[in-house]
Amino acid sequence: MALVQTNPLLAWDTVLDLGDDDAPLVARLERAVRDAVHAGRVPGGAALPPSRALADTLGVSRWVVTEVYGQLVAEGFCEARVGSRTRIAAGAAVHATPKRPPAYPTSSAPARRPRLDLAPGVPDLRHVPRAAWLRALRDALADTPDADLGAPDPAGHPPARAAVVDYLARARSTRAGPDDVLVTHGATDGMTRLARALRSAGHRTLLVEDPSWGRLRDVARDAGLVAVPVPVDDGGIDVDALAAAAARTGARAALVAPAHQFPTGVALAPGRRDALVSWARAVDGLVVEDDYDAEFRYDRRPVAALQGHDPGRVALLGSLSKTVSPAFGLGWLVLPPRWRERLGADAGGPAPSTLDQLALARFLTGGGYERHLRAARGRFRRRRAALLAALDTALPSLPVSGLAAGLHVVLGLPDGVPAAAVVRAAAARDVGVTDLRRYRVSAADHGPEALVVGYGNLADARVDEAVAALAAALVETP
Amino acid sequence: MALVQTNPLLAWDTVLDLGDDDAPLVARLERAVRDAVHAGRVPGGAALPPSRALADTLGVSRWVVTEVYGQLVAEGFCEARVGSRTRIAAGAAVHATPKRPPAYPTSSAPARRPRLDLAPGVPDLRHVPRAAWLRALRDALADTPDADLGAPDPAGHPPARAAVVDYLARARSTRAGPDDVLVTHGATDGMTRLARALRSAGHRTLLVEDPSWGRLRDVARDAGLVAVPVPVDDGGIDVDALAAAAARTGARAALVAPAHQFPTGVALAPGRRDALVSWARAVDGLVVEDDYDAEFRYDRRPVAALQGHDPGRVALLGSLSKTVSPAFGLGWLVLPPRWRERLGADAGGPAPSTLDQLALARFLTGGGYERHLRAARGRFRRRRAALLAALDTALPSLPVSGLAAGLHVVLGLPDGVPAAAVVRAAAARDVGVTDLRRYRVSAADHGPEALVVGYGNLADARVDEAVAALAAALVETP
Repeated sequence: MALVQTNPLLAWDTVLDLGDDDAPLVARLERAVRDAVHAGRVPGGAALPPSRALADTLGVSRWVVTEVYGQLVAEGFCEARVGSRTRIAAGAAVHATPKRPPAYPTSSAPARRPRLDLAPGVPDLRHVPRAAWLRALRDALADTPDADLGAPDPAGHPPARAAVVDYLARARSTRAGPDDVLVTHGATDGMTRLARALRSAGHRTLLVEDPSWGRLRDVARDAGLVAVPVPVDDGGIDVDALAAAAARTGARAALVAPAHQFPTGVALAPGRRDALVSWARAVDGLVVEDDYDAEFRYDRRPVAALQGHDPGRVALLGSLSKTVSPAFGLGWLVLPPRWRERLGADAGGPAPSTLDQLALARFLTGGGYERHLRAARGRFRRRRAALLAALDTALPSLPVSGLAAGLHVVLGLPDGVPAAAVVRAAAARDVGVTDLRRYRVSAADHGPEALVVGYGNLADARVDEAVAALAAALVETP
Repeated sequence: MALVQTNPLLAWDTVLDLGDDDAPLVARLERAVRDAVHAGRVPGGAALPPSRALADTLGVSRWVVTEVYGQLVAEGFCEARVGSRTRIAAGAAVHATPKRPPAYPTSSAPARRPRLDLAPGVPDLRHVPRAAWLRALRDALADTPDADLGAPDPAGHPPARAAVVDYLARARSTRAGPDDVLVTHGATDGMTRLARALRSAGHRTLLVEDPSWGRLRDVARDAGLVAVPVPVDDGGIDVDALAAAAARTGARAALVAPAHQFPTGVALAPGRRDALVSWARAVDGLVVEDDYDAEFRYDRRPVAALQGHDPGRVALLGSLSKTVSPAFGLGWLVLPPRWRERLGADAGGPAPSTLDQLALARFLTGGGYERHLRAARGRFRRRRAALLAALDTALPSLPVSGLAAGLHVVLGLPDGVPAAAVVRAAAARDVGVTDLRRYRVSAADHGPEALVVGYGNLADARVDEAVAALAAALVETP
């Protein structure tokens, strides 16, 4: 056999695995040579067979072999000298990266959602408006000029910013122009950008509601801001306590959710709205308004955004993540002019793709978003009523609090029953529910034990089952 | 008239502008009250007319007025006391934000593209595969489970990462698993994340090619890395000079474009590929491979990615921005395991939307991307040939350099003709062309005067006109 004559150490037809996929033969042979070297089946410095001999052995055309040899020589993987055989370069035989357990969460092991998922802040994933979104993108692509598909504007695609401004003015009574708005990936992205700007402007602290949504606090901390907790009561954040904490720490920025505080579910009392903005003016400060699910109010129209009260002192974070789906990766950040300037020409981070923004603009201006919100409000209103009725039947003595709004309720627990134990007992029944304490900022033990019960992604048919499981978990808790 | 009786100072029907848009009457009246206050037409503390009187004046139902009053009171914009009239709150009359000239580029004044746009690095915006992309998204949405539309994986949607890994192995001979890949917004986003990780791992410097693409150097600098320039010659970056610069400065990371150096258009010589990787191993360093347009090679198959040479020492930046369109905002970052770990669970920044990644996965696995590349290669090959022919006719004495690859050529200028002057003369003819010096890193004057002439976004029918304009600009240059 020719091969044995030219290279007695290697039986090339067994060393080279061409595979049987659809790739062109040249690519498969090239890969086969690389793999053989990386796997240690062919040592560095080894001579390759003459092209004709290898072609015969493998049953491929000689052109395929010379093409592969030429390619590997061009890359330095092989070496060719005049009058001599092509050889594997001495440095080519780098060992493949050994497999190791990943030190970070990977796709192979995503956090499994429990069978009955009562996590707050997740919208109904059964009703993501896939068709409406696809239509919005199709319609937008049909009349977007070629030039709009070039280098994107870091602040956001201009038609998308204009559509956001119009929507917010209409639905949230904001006052802003297109230059005051950034299109972001969502509230977390907006908070990240703003927190970095605050930090580089000399801020070291951020006043936050206690309890509150942890993710926004986390990214503020990652940007170098220390969270200063301020208590929340039935009227929302205690603005007197906020002013006192600000005076004590020098904090001049506050993160609040006026329309629907998370997780207590209260709205900021009218007098406090004024007081908060007055405080910001007095200290030359900034209020960051987390407007995360204000659109979901079931008993009346939503309270207007605080931003409209004083666009020079209030920045607004909004998002489709809790109203449509986190898969859309779209939100907005409305900024007072001087903070917009501080974020600079690159707007503090990469914008969502122009394609997503084209669809967003059409979704907002074509009424698709508001139609979705209307349908979602109806669904959530009915589901909330069913949940309250089931709780009233199964656990009549437990207090339920929170406005008729959003995607969760707060369920108070009987004296002496630790929420953490109920969460564990529920988890054993494959029910995911959250201890309200998880959202607390300060370590001090304040407030009664309570659970946060989300119903956004709970199937209507499962409401009774979920409540029964909660009741059973409660019974099991020592 | 009732109004005059109740409030002699204000003629409410002229003060309140309801507009004539499609919004519900309640929203329009609410907005009208806010606007009147913000515009200073109604002072803080002013009493509003009784609801029945205002309803009569405006010709609306009384319910509309009480609804609006209730809303404004709930927000603290108005105040209601028992037995007294509803009043505008004293603090409500905040003045609207004054208009000011923006300190950053805004959509209202985007950088206008010249009529004949010879910028490098811009693909053909006339041939963005809109329909293929829309099909990819439609097909992906048709069979994506609801659960996949929940909280996204910061590293990228798992099916998209798997598709990227397969594509890169096939087309670029990389060696990586899905856990080694992040889906990013593009090469700039990837470099931003990696530069921050380098900085936090103690790196202070980054070896860069001189000349090279400025945007990646900019974001590395913004992350705190000082660029250390290393000269480029016909064989790409001078690896001996790189090692010397590294020894002098302590640099252990290098940013290079082995397949197609920008802007010189050369490939890294085979021996230097080995030497570069050996250097990285010797200093426990990292090579960052900018694989920005390697797919566009017209005379042969692209040189394989250096990453496949040593996945433990080479990170790879890739993107659709120069092969499809920057509007897609999609790219990838392949990382050695220890750098993937350093980026942490949040992967260093927000991922592109799951929707975009669903479409990307389908575009890659369904062959849409490779069909697009094949068609684009044919177009660019023909256009490049036409450009070279036109240059040979109009400016036969000027040297043209760069591989038969990518989206630009380098045009050498006659002795004593400054490129900057030719750029200005061309701009006066509405032709955009770039001085090669713009991509230089060190201030030292090295190399002859030259222009970078991009043809990616130049219409085929305009090639001769563009070359004629360049020739005329050259004649006009003193």
